[in-house]
Amino acid sequence: MIELEQKILNEGEILPGGILKLGSFLNQQVDTDFMTLMAKEGAKLYEGCGITKVLTVEASGISLAFAVAQQLHVPMLFAKKYGASNITGDLYKASVYSFTHKQTFDIVVSKKYLTSEDNVLICDDFLAKGNALNGLIHIVEQSGASLEGALIAVEKSFQGGGDLLREEGVRVESLAIIESMDDEVIEFRHG
Amino acid sequence: MIELEQKILNEGEILPGGILKLGSFLNQQVDTDFMTLMAKEGAKLYEGCGITKVLTVEASGISLAFAVAQQLHVPMLFAKKYGASNITGDLYKASVYSFTHKQTFDIVVSKKYLTSEDNVLICDDFLAKGNALNGLIHIVEQSGASLEGALIAVEKSFQGGGDLLREEGVRVESLAIIESMDDEVIEFRHG
Repeated sequence: MIELEQKILNEGEILPGGILKLGSFLNQQVDTDFMTLMAKEGAKLYEGCGITKVLTVEASGISLAFAVAQQLHVPMLFAKKYGASNITGDLYKASVYSFTHKQTFDIVVSKKYLTSEDNVLICDDFLAKGNALNGLIHIVEQSGASLEGALIAVEKSFQGGGDLLREEGVRVESLAIIESMDDEVIEFRHG
Repeated sequence: MIELEQKILNEGEILPGGILKLGSFLNQQVDTDFMTLMAKEGAKLYEGCGITKVLTVEASGISLAFAVAQQLHVPMLFAKKYGASNITGDLYKASVYSFTHKQTFDIVVSKKYLTSEDNVLICDDFLAKGNALNGLIHIVEQSGASLEGALIAVEKSFQGGGDLLREEGVRVESLAIIESMDDEVIEFRHG
């Protein structure tokens, strides 16, 4: 998505360690008009797939997941970080290692909101090594739901997570794919 | 908002200690069509107020804040829980006591996303004692921005936070106000 690439080039901040900050429009401040545009683009990719639920993990994936689910007229569901939440009852649980925080945390979803009847689209703002995405996939597997695929705003393909999942047969669609950001120069992958 | 009251009656779960769970449509699973309807209703209340930014706190306030900001065509901004985030740079910070988790945590917003030029609407899913709302108001004050008011999905007026803020002159609009839920019977305040 050319408009997203342009926005990354204009507003992104590159920090040491392969970190790209897009807080001005994607995941702290959210440009709602632009997010709606991204969601329309993303929803189009999964049109006709019979998605019944859009799944993400708190907190920065919620805006995109909400906007995509809104386009598809289905519920959005977000996994919560266990311990930090008051979620109770029967839960699906998965462990996610966070490189940002250098620790593993558990994410949980209440069993009543995801069943074997569901056909799930997973959404997230970033895909790097794929830890969060793998955790969400693990939750979908536990529920017996079908996984239709994933929709990511920004994939950093040089960190490998997206391509690994594609090799495993998971459909992963990213609205922008960053192939490299060496020396603070961002190169996108196309086609 | 009658439709919201109906949904609370149909889908809400009352737990001991004045806890009301609306996870089926409001804050774990989100009914996106219904949230859009709520956001339209809420945005109408603040139409013509010159809102420049909608502020909330992660994670369960994000869906409503996003949907309202989308209606107003302004950015949505969410405060992050400090420590659990990789937010850096100059920050506004406020302390919030959580009754759910029985602990105080700090919430932060990057200074670059909120300035004295802004005219802010605060959104949240629930208002009980007003701790989160007070934290967000404190952040708005630090920024020098104007606070236009707050928009809440569900206020539990028997916990007092909303009326206290109204007495202090803060405009607080709630789409549903629960006056009591004794013996698992939910009574709404009208007018």
